[in-house]
Amino acid sequence: MKALKEKLMDSNAGYAAVFGKNAELSSIPAKKLAILTCMDCRLDPAEFSGLSLGDAHVIRNAGGRASDDAIRSLVISHKLLGTDQWFVIHHTDCGMEMIDNSNMGELLSESLGTAILDREGWKNLQRDGGSEEGKFINWLPITHQRNSILEDVKRIREHPLVSEKISVYGFLFDVKTGRLEEIKD
Amino acid sequence: MKALKEKLMDSNAGYAAVFGKNAELSSIPAKKLAILTCMDCRLDPAEFSGLSLGDAHVIRNAGGRASDDAIRSLVISHKLLGTDQWFVIHHTDCGMEMIDNSNMGELLSESLGTAILDREGWKNLQRDGGSEEGKFINWLPITHQRNSILEDVKRIREHPLVSEKISVYGFLFDVKTGRLEEIKD
Repeated sequence: MKALKEKLMDSNAGYAAVFGKNAELSSIPAKKLAILTCMDCRLDPAEFSGLSLGDAHVIRNAGGRASDDAIRSLVISHKLLGTDQWFVIHHTDCGMEMIDNSNMGELLSESLGTAILDREGWKNLQRDGGSEEGKFINWLPITHQRNSILEDVKRIREHPLVSEKISVYGFLFDVKTGRLEEIKD
Repeated sequence: MKALKEKLMDSNAGYAAVFGKNAELSSIPAKKLAILTCMDCRLDPAEFSGLSLGDAHVIRNAGGRASDDAIRSLVISHKLLGTDQWFVIHHTDCGMEMIDNSNMGELLSESLGTAILDREGWKNLQRDGGSEEGKFINWLPITHQRNSILEDVKRIREHPLVSEKISVYGFLFDVKTGRLEEIKD
């Protein structure tokens, strides 16, 4: 059986064979749009918002949070490449609602391996020696779905490096229906 | 003419109408894969590596860099959702090769608005008052395309919160051909 890496390289060879006119796309997003959303495997922002290759910057992290690094990326997106509409899209059933900084730190201090979630909470399958480093990180957990969207829009909106000319909108993507809902104050 | 937001909501309504069995997808990536890549508008990681919805976590930022926030996301990806193969994918003609920390800080201190690149370098179109904040940020510029991939793979590989059981691979995506090339030491 082929390993995952080889399978993906095979798929990519097929993609490259029909790449054609995509070679002419500009690095400047045609729709002047940047999307910040979660890394979740059930989300495909180009698909769920009907975008074509070349239309938008897509920034993704755990939770779709307005982390310092997301803001670094957004500021570059406007400053160097001219996007002026930014969509912050969180989603239902997000893993970031199921942790907090305390249990992430504890879990990682016992083991770096994958934990499982049962009725009593997260449990490590092994206790093979982890790292205390996890206790010094803000994992950016989400305690309230809609508030986290409003907070992230607000953080971006009020950031000293974000121009007033940029429009920032918040959305919730429902993983059970595929639907986007705008979330406003 | 409809505004961008309304157009995207219309497209999304069409997507939701045929969402169907996607509602049953697990939050656990079927291919146990996480991809870290650039926000660039010419990249669609699901397309160029032949992935389906539900297969992989996708983390994206300016440059596809192994920032602290990318590592936060990757560690969550393995610890809570079991991914064990991570692909770091940078690309040719990346905007991060065209800046350094010094000119980003200077440009932003003059204006928050979009700058243009000409033969003499980046220039602000306005000087309408920016912010000194940009001088205190590491923008994670790229000085050497292939080295930046190797450095990022190394940072992830050696991070105290990354399990030895995870495979980390580096790739370069060519925006002129659509082709992925593995980059190794």
